[in-house]
Amino acid sequence: MKLARLKTGGGARLVRVDAAGRRFWPIETLAPDLPGEMTALIAALSGGATMPEPTGEGEALDPAMLLAPVPQPPRNIFCVGKNYHAHAKEFAGSGYDSSSTSAADAIPKAPIIFTKPFTSISGPWDDIPMVPGLDAEVDYEAELAVVIGRGGRCIPKAQAMAHVFGYTLVNDVTARDLQGVHKQWLLGKGIDGFCPMGPFLVTADELDAGTMRVTCMVNGEKRQDASTADLIFDIPTLIETISLSMALLPGDIIATGTPEGVGIGFKPPRFLRDGDVVECAIEGIGSIRNTLRKVDPAALHGAA
Amino acid sequence: MKLARLKTGGGARLVRVDAAGRRFWPIETLAPDLPGEMTALIAALSGGATMPEPTGEGEALDPAMLLAPVPQPPRNIFCVGKNYHAHAKEFAGSGYDSSSTSAADAIPKAPIIFTKPFTSISGPWDDIPMVPGLDAEVDYEAELAVVIGRGGRCIPKAQAMAHVFGYTLVNDVTARDLQGVHKQWLLGKGIDGFCPMGPFLVTADELDAGTMRVTCMVNGEKRQDASTADLIFDIPTLIETISLSMALLPGDIIATGTPEGVGIGFKPPRFLRDGDVVECAIEGIGSIRNTLRKVDPAALHGAA
Repeated sequence: MKLARLKTGGGARLVRVDAAGRRFWPIETLAPDLPGEMTALIAALSGGATMPEPTGEGEALDPAMLLAPVPQPPRNIFCVGKNYHAHAKEFAGSGYDSSSTSAADAIPKAPIIFTKPFTSISGPWDDIPMVPGLDAEVDYEAELAVVIGRGGRCIPKAQAMAHVFGYTLVNDVTARDLQGVHKQWLLGKGIDGFCPMGPFLVTADELDAGTMRVTCMVNGEKRQDASTADLIFDIPTLIETISLSMALLPGDIIATGTPEGVGIGFKPPRFLRDGDVVECAIEGIGSIRNTLRKVDPAALHGAA
Repeated sequence: MKLARLKTGGGARLVRVDAAGRRFWPIETLAPDLPGEMTALIAALSGGATMPEPTGEGEALDPAMLLAPVPQPPRNIFCVGKNYHAHAKEFAGSGYDSSSTSAADAIPKAPIIFTKPFTSISGPWDDIPMVPGLDAEVDYEAELAVVIGRGGRCIPKAQAMAHVFGYTLVNDVTARDLQGVHKQWLLGKGIDGFCPMGPFLVTADELDAGTMRVTCMVNGEKRQDASTADLIFDIPTLIETISLSMALLPGDIIATGTPEGVGIGFKPPRFLRDGDVVECAIEGIGSIRNTLRKVDPAALHGAA
């Protein structure tokens, strides 16, 4: 099952989408007893509620209507650093890696987990804001994102996949200079608008997360192209590790890390510039496309 | 003004408390038009709503009723690492500091910001859970926590204090082994029950955050005793820095860092053990007291 959120005149609308991503059925009419907010819907469906099969033709889905499918998870998004072998090596060799001091410890011994707040989440076609002070070293990171269904604490690997509701795609956009200078990665990663997400939330039964292809193009040039088979810490390991520290909650998101090919993997680094177009894709989920766009800082003052 | 949350038969009750912390007036009767949830109340009061002065004697406050005053900020708590000069040196010399490799860079050049999710927050007298796998190197960190009132982006230092609603106290309890092995600090810091908070939320007009005394006792022995005057990055600097990356929101919490005297500052380190009692205090806010308590891991499975 594919789920999405659509921009409508009256705000956002939760919908079920057909396999091709072309037709939709609003949840409010398809299943009026189910919640109309995504995190609550995930909790309900993971708790035993069932989604009816659509009947009739549905409505035509204009991709321009798509919003981030999970705009407000219950906590900051859990993000995994250096979780593909080839990327871990390119990052450790980039001079930007505050977590590693030599090639010998490039591959992490345990998952590196940091967060991005929900306020960084933006839609699949939204611009990525370039704000003075944050725009010098902006980089892309295409990632498979796991959406948790049933919550739980101390979940063993063998049971972990039963807690996965589904998957979406995020671009873990990063200000590399802030990531470095602040040592902990929140301020370089959690910038408003630095987490484009979408286009769909696809339930776990439809995908094999062990062999998904993750790609990223910048201005039409392929930069990232890898399989999730190359993950250092697979999804069950991530769920076991995080849920040892804290109970996972329905709607929690785990962004599983990015493969090789980010801007700082090049020498010299190739950072994103105003007007650049970044397109991330994962087979079975779809693609998102975001343009880097200068923002007048005067427009930000007082914004909240 | 002092605000608190009290445990009652029917759940949690938001109250205004007198200066001595001995009498209270429920918000629902004192100001029935104001929200009964703390983050919404902070937003309303920061947006121009006024809190009436209490009339009459109020009710007697039994300290045992106190809960964490801000149990669900809009995002993970922002926490500052290594933000007192003497503590930055003790941490850099402890062998646990993944952000520093030598005494020469012990003092951070920019604020180190990581997060603790709301699920780590517990009450002022709650036990700190000792879970197998997380209990080997548990440490205390008494901290002044800033609660944001009016939100905003790109807030300059000179205007920052106008965005502070008030202050509370947190113990940024930490599993040092996890903090080290995972490089980024979320999993060692964000453990369920590892952020006791309280006892009150005190509005900014009543305190001078520049010269507050922060102390921590373990089993009656003084371990931490410092003034916020020793902060490396003061509150206006923290607000300016965080709000460059993201708009601050009403109810956001910034835990400003802990002073010298944590367990890993001793050689050998003095970690917390089952039954230890940790009491943190800040003048003008009050004190919280939490006991380390073994938890049967079987009781955690399936918890969410």
